[in-house]
Amino acid sequence: MQLKVKILKFMAGRPIAVLNQSTANHINVHVGERINLSKYADSIVSIVDVSKDLIGNDEVAVSQEIIESLNVRENDEVEVSLAQKPQSTFFIKKKMDGESLKKDEIHSIIKDIVDNALTEAELAYFVAAVYKNKMNNAETEALISSMVSVGKRLSFDGLVVDKHSIGGIAANRTTPIVVSICAAAGLVMPKTSSRAITSAAGTADVLESICKVEFNSEELKTIVKKTGACMVWNGILGLSPADDKLIQTERVLALDPEAQLIASVLSKKIAVGSKYVLIDIPYGSSAKVSKKNSAELKKKFEFFGKRFGLNIRCVLTDGEQPIGNGIGPLLEIRDVIKVLKQEQDMPRDLERKGIFLAGQIFELCGKTKKGKGEHLAMEILKSGKANHKFHEIMEAQHGKVPNIEDIEHKLGRSKKNILADRNMKIREINNKKLNAIASVAGSPMDKGSGIYLYHHLGDKVKKGDKLVTLYSDSKTRLENALELFEKLEPIN
Amino acid sequence: MQLKVKILKFMAGRPIAVLNQSTANHINVHVGERINLSKYADSIVSIVDVSKDLIGNDEVAVSQEIIESLNVRENDEVEVSLAQKPQSTFFIKKKMDGESLKKDEIHSIIKDIVDNALTEAELAYFVAAVYKNKMNNAETEALISSMVSVGKRLSFDGLVVDKHSIGGIAANRTTPIVVSICAAAGLVMPKTSSRAITSAAGTADVLESICKVEFNSEELKTIVKKTGACMVWNGILGLSPADDKLIQTERVLALDPEAQLIASVLSKKIAVGSKYVLIDIPYGSSAKVSKKNSAELKKKFEFFGKRFGLNIRCVLTDGEQPIGNGIGPLLEIRDVIKVLKQEQDMPRDLERKGIFLAGQIFELCGKTKKGKGEHLAMEILKSGKANHKFHEIMEAQHGKVPNIEDIEHKLGRSKKNILADRNMKIREINNKKLNAIASVAGSPMDKGSGIYLYHHLGDKVKKGDKLVTLYSDSKTRLENALELFEKLEPIN
Repeated sequence: MQLKVKILKFMAGRPIAVLNQSTANHINVHVGERINLSKYADSIVSIVDVSKDLIGNDEVAVSQEIIESLNVRENDEVEVSLAQKPQSTFFIKKKMDGESLKKDEIHSIIKDIVDNALTEAELAYFVAAVYKNKMNNAETEALISSMVSVGKRLSFDGLVVDKHSIGGIAANRTTPIVVSICAAAGLVMPKTSSRAITSAAGTADVLESICKVEFNSEELKTIVKKTGACMVWNGILGLSPADDKLIQTERVLALDPEAQLIASVLSKKIAVGSKYVLIDIPYGSSAKVSKKNSAELKKKFEFFGKRFGLNIRCVLTDGEQPIGNGIGPLLEIRDVIKVLKQEQDMPRDLERKGIFLAGQIFELCGKTKKGKGEHLAMEILKSGKANHKFHEIMEAQHGKVPNIEDIEHKLGRSKKNILADRNMKIREINNKKLNAIASVAGSPMDKGSGIYLYHHLGDKVKKGDKLVTLYSDSKTRLENALELFEKLEPIN
Repeated sequence: MQLKVKILKFMAGRPIAVLNQSTANHINVHVGERINLSKYADSIVSIVDVSKDLIGNDEVAVSQEIIESLNVRENDEVEVSLAQKPQSTFFIKKKMDGESLKKDEIHSIIKDIVDNALTEAELAYFVAAVYKNKMNNAETEALISSMVSVGKRLSFDGLVVDKHSIGGIAANRTTPIVVSICAAAGLVMPKTSSRAITSAAGTADVLESICKVEFNSEELKTIVKKTGACMVWNGILGLSPADDKLIQTERVLALDPEAQLIASVLSKKIAVGSKYVLIDIPYGSSAKVSKKNSAELKKKFEFFGKRFGLNIRCVLTDGEQPIGNGIGPLLEIRDVIKVLKQEQDMPRDLERKGIFLAGQIFELCGKTKKGKGEHLAMEILKSGKANHKFHEIMEAQHGKVPNIEDIEHKLGRSKKNILADRNMKIREINNKKLNAIASVAGSPMDKGSGIYLYHHLGDKVKKGDKLVTLYSDSKTRLENALELFEKLEPIN
């Protein structure tokens, strides 16, 4: 039936349409079910709410998502009809019951995710089904190609390189260092990054503390053309829109099923036009990947990378403890800036890892011979060229690299030192626990919140020495983080 | 912070609060996250949406759920603060990862479900975790007692009996027959029923086609006091509010994990004050329960029933095909009325099963000796006493038992006969497929939609004979149902 549009001035996070009760009865739709709205050739599926008396019989109130998608104005007429439960929900059930999905079944799920045809609960069931039942190779390949097919594709001239570190390690903010070194060496590196999924902050969250990270693909191209690189959030680029939604759902429980992890990484690398891709797989007892599984994951990345024409290399790195000292956006960017500026008190472990990864990329794409990559990377870093390139990229992203003191002023208004209660040698620094504590403190949303670590594995600490400082913008959150710290004992 | 209430005139299905962007930033909350709203001693957790310009800096717009829960009016002040991610989400993750949950962990999940502290996705993850990883006995017992503890408890004088048939069998509408027979015999039977979960219609959906089924617990007591029985929807009674929400989430994918099934049934029987409970477990190749699992399920029901002081009996019944001819609310109630009126063309299988179940209840509660139950049940049915009691209950529920002709006028406006395309002997009538087809036709929402079966297993059918008639209020739905019928071939 034809209904007149009333505009709801809010984003609901997904399309929401409100009908009055009698219209809903007429269309035969209930709260939480789906309707189709269409105008000319455009149509969108929306979840229905029912109003008691705000909406007239001949009206439908729609959220901003629908307004943008259908390009409608107040009082425009739209055609509204009952949307069927999408067929993809049956495939989700099938996967939940342990059966394998066919290529077109996976494609139907991915397409419905992008078309907003699935509810929050249905998405969660899909994530849970893949988490519990895993995907075989044919399914994973179909997932990658479906994800690519529903997204945009970019392409760049030159030696286009990329890197991805599997998340879950606290801190470990190597990306700005590696990108700056590689771009300074003349490689093209259109790096897109996620926000936090299972760790306390993603690269996009961290960079957002000093520059803009939300750009569209045209803007991305301009930045890369200008500087040879970029470091932007992948969430609104539309490179892998299905993955962007799946990640939102995964984040709810910090789930990250392997097939989706692989598809998430590779679909974005393929979409952005990368030819040489380095994957850093940190493994360890509190990392996302165990030592045992790391070799298997490496094989899978290499297998699927090849299937999609990528030159891919995986490195297994030590993920037994955080890399760097800061956990949380501003604390991490401070570490990064110190390394790029080669300051005396920079975190040496972060510098080492940045050089290692950049060196690997140089060798992978033929920039240097085998065994010579790290040397070039170190040279570029020590010479200040990488730091200069970093400033250039940050400026292109409407930001500015702050002084260390400026950062320190912006750290959480509330803070708390935690001291060693006895003499000890540090034998465990648990990534998962630290990530959980930093999240409770407000990371990544409070940019100044998080944890500063004073020690690494093997360090000897005396009673009364500082172990960590907790930062938060909110006293309540600081107390909660402190309580969780004492409960979890992340450092032993 | 203190914010002024603006009233959103719609039910969102769960509490929704809309903040403007700057207030959201101040509280440090994002779309889809949670806030606490409180006024005096009352508080409620709500999901946040963010408005572009509808809401002022000092305002919060709230859905009807919040208005009802906090009892607030336009321009009242409420205290708004960030709600933490509930601890129960960590327990859900734990269960997802295959670990067992402790009693207090399960209780924390159930409490948060009832308090609306969990999102749709989190609820789906809980259902998926239990579906995939199952629950051990200690967990199931904790689930039952948690569900009971968050709900209301009723109690009645007299011999309070109850029955439950495991769903999934198409048609199988024995409840109105059994309740009418038992109440006519002087037993007290406060029967509460669900709406459809995995089948095309639940008893509440079916009865709703001729009477009211939504009552509160005070009204329920009045009906039972007056007639000795009731047949009402359990969804708004508050007997097991956690279960009511879980069922909504399960329905999305037609999941029904065993532990939740047991807890769902028993928590409601305990809450309503039943002392003698008969559980009908239909098994078969297209039933929810296989022959293999039925004995195990029987044992579990008996085990947990005893733990909670119920006198419980389980009967394993033939679920190889639908019981009765109609599938869909009005089609099923027509079968029921024919049996109660003892009409010539009543479905004999439905009559037989009703008598059997009522007889079992008579023996279980000591109304008759062993072996004499069915005889009494048959006597009451044949004498017209059951039919008289049914009229009495329907009147107490603001309804009226219609004539068969009146029902026939209300059946789906569109219908389609499906004929046998060859001579055959019927060897399969698939419950799951028929339920799916009836759902597509509009059941249980379109009361007149569904499937009428002309045959049962073993019948010989000639080419051109009617196999079934499909009914729907919508031509599109009828076509979709027809297409699905041809694809699934539910009758062979």
